[in-house]
Amino acid sequence: MGQTKFGELWDVSFRQMMLEAGVRALEDAGIDGAHIDALYVGNMSGGQFIKQEHIASLIADHAGLVPLPSTRVEGACASGGLALRQAFISVASGIHDFVVAAGIEKMTDVLSEQATGALATAADQEWEVYAGATFPGLYALMARRHMYEFGTTEEEMAMVAVKNHHNACLNPCAQYHTEVTVEAVLRSPPVALPLKLLDCSPVTDGAACVVLAPAEEARKYTDTPVIIEGSGQASDTISLHSRSSLTTLKATVEAARIAYRMAGIEPKDVNLAEVHDCFTIAEIMAIEDLGFCRRGEGGKLTREGATQIGGSIPINTSGGLKGKGHPVGATGIAQAIEVVQQLRGEAGKRQVNGATVGLTHNVGGSGGTAVVHIFRRGD
Amino acid sequence: MGQTKFGELWDVSFRQMMLEAGVRALEDAGIDGAHIDALYVGNMSGGQFIKQEHIASLIADHAGLVPLPSTRVEGACASGGLALRQAFISVASGIHDFVVAAGIEKMTDVLSEQATGALATAADQEWEVYAGATFPGLYALMARRHMYEFGTTEEEMAMVAVKNHHNACLNPCAQYHTEVTVEAVLRSPPVALPLKLLDCSPVTDGAACVVLAPAEEARKYTDTPVIIEGSGQASDTISLHSRSSLTTLKATVEAARIAYRMAGIEPKDVNLAEVHDCFTIAEIMAIEDLGFCRRGEGGKLTREGATQIGGSIPINTSGGLKGKGHPVGATGIAQAIEVVQQLRGEAGKRQVNGATVGLTHNVGGSGGTAVVHIFRRGD
Repeated sequence: MGQTKFGELWDVSFRQMMLEAGVRALEDAGIDGAHIDALYVGNMSGGQFIKQEHIASLIADHAGLVPLPSTRVEGACASGGLALRQAFISVASGIHDFVVAAGIEKMTDVLSEQATGALATAADQEWEVYAGATFPGLYALMARRHMYEFGTTEEEMAMVAVKNHHNACLNPCAQYHTEVTVEAVLRSPPVALPLKLLDCSPVTDGAACVVLAPAEEARKYTDTPVIIEGSGQASDTISLHSRSSLTTLKATVEAARIAYRMAGIEPKDVNLAEVHDCFTIAEIMAIEDLGFCRRGEGGKLTREGATQIGGSIPINTSGGLKGKGHPVGATGIAQAIEVVQQLRGEAGKRQVNGATVGLTHNVGGSGGTAVVHIFRRGD
Repeated sequence: MGQTKFGELWDVSFRQMMLEAGVRALEDAGIDGAHIDALYVGNMSGGQFIKQEHIASLIADHAGLVPLPSTRVEGACASGGLALRQAFISVASGIHDFVVAAGIEKMTDVLSEQATGALATAADQEWEVYAGATFPGLYALMARRHMYEFGTTEEEMAMVAVKNHHNACLNPCAQYHTEVTVEAVLRSPPVALPLKLLDCSPVTDGAACVVLAPAEEARKYTDTPVIIEGSGQASDTISLHSRSSLTTLKATVEAARIAYRMAGIEPKDVNLAEVHDCFTIAEIMAIEDLGFCRRGEGGKLTREGATQIGGSIPINTSGGLKGKGHPVGATGIAQAIEVVQQLRGEAGKRQVNGATVGLTHNVGGSGGTAVVHIFRRGD
């Protein structure tokens, strides 16, 4: 695995970012390009952010990996998770052995209102966006309803940001190395109330890359392979207004059910998870939907400290989308990188002691797509 | 399989087009939505053409197929072929059984210069497009060089258009039902010489859909299953200027090599092929790269009539991109539909007698991606 630092990378081009992450991944894996059979690249919108589609060809070309098959997959903010899943399926099928799963987004080359507009194309353009919806607005609706149904508070949401900024301070690749307080979150400028600026994940440039191989092959290259034991993907209505509940993402529940079943485990067996905290309320809903607590108790679990490093179920030890940054297409791969580091015992000050099972949870849009993977230390 | 009519479908929305193709495919397959395990959708640029990314979620939603996993794949004009290949790999892996491979593009909701700009994002934006290149310009360079190296003539290129328009007249789903003559092609307005207007495939709306299943399952639903016996994908430099030759697409040669080897056949065993004739010169190069004639003899093969229906190797019996239309992301799936119709013996006036083996060839950009599939009648 390998990734760039996440942040506003104004002096690095799209193709150079991908190359940097890729070279680090190959060095980490102890292989070179000649080992690789195929590439899958998650990217939400090269077309809108840098006027470049066909990025999988661009990347194979710039990485010197021509004529390998190279395929872009897209599912909005879940694009990275989908790339990981397609790579996993292609290894499982036997059609490829060594496969690169990458993710990338270059978001800061456009003005911020253009970025908001580009991101909104992950929602239903005709039925939501033309009516004025943006992503903060959609998640604000979920937050309001969660507060109404379960008594979740703005303070509890703020605690998600406080924790994830703290974790990000321990992660050299994170966009932010700044602690925040509950008071600072509550007093930050309103974006779409109850969500304030510090409830929202940032706009970020970044690339991330992992190498997959059949388990028996991987053992030739490392004593601490990490095995993908479960992979689940599901969809839901793209429009928020079509759903029977605003306080659960059915796609997450379904993707998790499939992944848990494939891995043969239950939520209580998971030692840590990287979840899709595009907004603070999203982390609270995610830990409920993934089964780490009962519905409505995500705020309480956060308040009690269970989701901190050292708690019973550490969440977003990397800093999450909130603190590490959210280069949309790269996020799902970066989540896998954090879990691999943790399961190898290489997470430094972020290390969750004795972690053997980790989970990643990547969401597209307001929940139209969800991807869940379960990883186990394989030694 | 099922598809919409191809053309300027101003009165049909993106989601409605996909639904129409999908319903026809399910009716043709004799199954309903409850049978389906997953969807793969090829689409080049919903982001630029209709300001909608995350289309796989939109489609699963509008088709009533939530919570099925639904994934968009993109490789410019090869997006449909890539969707077919991912669907094939996912069935082969055992993770899914009944899988929908779809393709769609809605291109006529923008002005024509915007469409040209959107399509150019399949080329290298920084190194080609910002320097003034468009797709007709890039293929014109290939045509000039092919004429110089091999003596290929503008008349031979025109004969590709004449044949494909003729075939399209026999295809109810084609965009054009208009015969053209060599003289008409030669006298049509210059686009990027030597390519004239009638050397270029059009801008098109359309959707197409096929259903894949394990072969033993497919036999329960039809007496004439069509088996995918080979699948090959390869990449090349995205920039034309980086290549050692302008008269061959190495990605096509490599993808074909892989597909032929997987199927255990040679080019002479193929009864008909749908090739990627985005420009007339592209068909001439394709039939060389796929091994239907020697390099430099594609013009001659065309002039001799071998590529017509009734010839030794009928090419683009559907009308091809030139006559049937080229809704970018849908093209690779529509190619498969034509081959299936031919192998079932259901191609009507376009029927190639006794066809048992067909090939599809789908190209992204100026050859940065190529996908080749080989199909055999399975009874």
